Amino acid sequence: MAEPAATTGGPAARAHDLVLAARDGDRRSLARLLTAVENRTPLAEPALREMYPLAGAAHVVGITGPPGAGKSTLVAALIGEVRKAGRAVAVVAVDPSSPITGGALLGDRVRMQSYAGDRDVFIRSMAARGHAGGLASTTGAATAVLDAAGFDLILVETVGTGQSEVEVAAAADTTVVLEAPEMGDEVQAIKAGLLEVADLVVVNKGDKPGAQRTAAQLRAMLVAGGGPKVGGDPSQARPRPKRPEVLITTAATGEGVPELLVALDRHRSSSATGPTDSARLARADALVWAIVAERLRERLRAPDQSDATRVTLAAVADHRLDPYAAADALLAVLGSGSASPARD
Amino acid sequence: MAEPAATTGGPAARAHDLVLAARDGDRRSLARLLTAVENRTPLAEPALREMYPLAGAAHVVGITGPPGAGKSTLVAALIGEVRKAGRAVAVVAVDPSSPITGGALLGDRVRMQSYAGDRDVFIRSMAARGHAGGLASTTGAATAVLDAAGFDLILVETVGTGQSEVEVAAAADTTVVLEAPEMGDEVQAIKAGLLEVADLVVVNKGDKPGAQRTAAQLRAMLVAGGGPKVGGDPSQARPRPKRPEVLITTAATGEGVPELLVALDRHRSSSATGPTDSARLARADALVWAIVAERLRERLRAPDQSDATRVTLAAVADHRLDPYAAADALLAVLGSGSASPARD
Repeated sequence: MAEPAATTGGPAARAHDLVLAARDGDRRSLARLLTAVENRTPLAEPALREMYPLAGAAHVVGITGPPGAGKSTLVAALIGEVRKAGRAVAVVAVDPSSPITGGALLGDRVRMQSYAGDRDVFIRSMAARGHAGGLASTTGAATAVLDAAGFDLILVETVGTGQSEVEVAAAADTTVVLEAPEMGDEVQAIKAGLLEVADLVVVNKGDKPGAQRTAAQLRAMLVAGGGPKVGGDPSQARPRPKRPEVLITTAATGEGVPELLVALDRHRSSSATGPTDSARLARADALVWAIVAERLRERLRAPDQSDATRVTLAAVADHRLDPYAAADALLAVLGSGSASPARD
Repeated sequence: MAEPAATTGGPAARAHDLVLAARDGDRRSLARLLTAVENRTPLAEPALREMYPLAGAAHVVGITGPPGAGKSTLVAALIGEVRKAGRAVAVVAVDPSSPITGGALLGDRVRMQSYAGDRDVFIRSMAARGHAGGLASTTGAATAVLDAAGFDLILVETVGTGQSEVEVAAAADTTVVLEAPEMGDEVQAIKAGLLEVADLVVVNKGDKPGAQRTAAQLRAMLVAGGGPKVGGDPSQARPRPKRPEVLITTAATGEGVPELLVALDRHRSSSATGPTDSARLARADALVWAIVAERLRERLRAPDQSDATRVTLAAVADHRLDPYAAADALLAVLGSGSASPARD
């Protein structure tokens, strides 16, 4: 499993030390491991190689919904509820604010700062940036790290308007879609799409007028539901076993939050139908393919290949070469290279 | 360039007929080509191989912003303005409403139906679905098809909250970020992130109170701007040559829209600094990598390999194998296969 920590001070040895410390409860080491995984530093591979086989026990809950539905407030309320039960909880908040610098602190998230001194609460903001497909893979790696560090419940909060962000939420063991009463047309359309990935639907801001009506409308819409959980890729298809429950919460006051936690635990038990369910397969698929793509890009950008790669891509940019011919040219380079793809 | 249409009635021959008809102004053929590209049917490859080298002349304008900023209304207003000048315009609206069934008609988009009889206006809704990285690649392919069909201006409308969607907009020749006065906290944070990809910033709903103040705030924020246009991938980095202009429009009445069109044309001229600019390189990169990934997946899912692939991914899902070991196992299979990656 783990890389032998042969080179003292090398990435594998340093990763091993951090993993031991993180599993022993050291939050700084855990944070460094997450940074390594997020930024794909040289520590990422040895750390994940060691931690991944130690993970697999946590319940990963995706929480998504349109902007303004109150996701961060609900996450804060859930943390409070989980802590009352004495359980440890980690949050991965995929920050929608920046594809680049990533990490403006959202107003709501300030509430969570009250858990800063609690060793059994760990909150991590992650930028929605990087390579195509990187978000699902980075989030999957981060949940594996948190899982291996002993967190039994991991909440992954994403804004439910982007493709990648919805895929991230949908690859959770349990996907909660948050709605708020009375939103604009565009937001309504987003809601309709999100329902297709929901295991649980929560109408938040339950104290606002229209909450009960919104819940009733959603229940009516969901009678007609069913079908695959996520389309496009066969590994991500997941038949929805039954129509999702619709709950009402008022996250700001905590109303309905205990019932939501009960529903989450119930879904966890009921969805444990076999050792390899499709949500876990989707997470594995995203992780593995991102690494395959990363390894291929590394090879094509290695000093002996990077000029050829650049020239090929520039020819496509200038419309002198079609992208299929370019792809075949790059694949030919890969095929004629070393058959062993091992890191060296 | 084009596949020889050897097999009568084969995909290449049918694609060739559709390409001829589409370039001759037949909108049904154009729609069929776009469907082929979007769904990656057997027509997609021969169609794109033929059309891609014919493209490269169009001005691709990305229009993004948070939900509720009025993107669709502005696109409709821009169409009107462009048509006054007698120019042909195509719109690719990346629909945020569904990652799966994709395509609920947004309220605003109904306005565009008034151009249904106009041969020089072509509007296409695209679902934000598919493989990771698929959105940028599918959009790039669609703009190439529209470009080859003779559209000189192509507007790509995306909701600016998701990673993929922002990347799509940022890979346009000119990226317009739309803002509206007075939005909530979460939306404000989204705005801040979006500014980093803007070539032009438009404060829409200019008739609302606070529009002038919002524009002034944005101008102040942008003085501190600069840096790469899109991070993560070197091919997508693009130094912003100067700080983006901030305009005010009221799309619903058309106020400020002529000025926006002038600004778009000005940016097009000023950004034509060389034959291979970085936005085009980013589009090419997305297209080529998606095809490389598709080819690799095809090979790993071919009948002689699919069982091994499934077993490998299931082992990762069950945490019996780490994702790096799995990636290396899959790459070893690819490396030991035929060195020629040609379609056969």
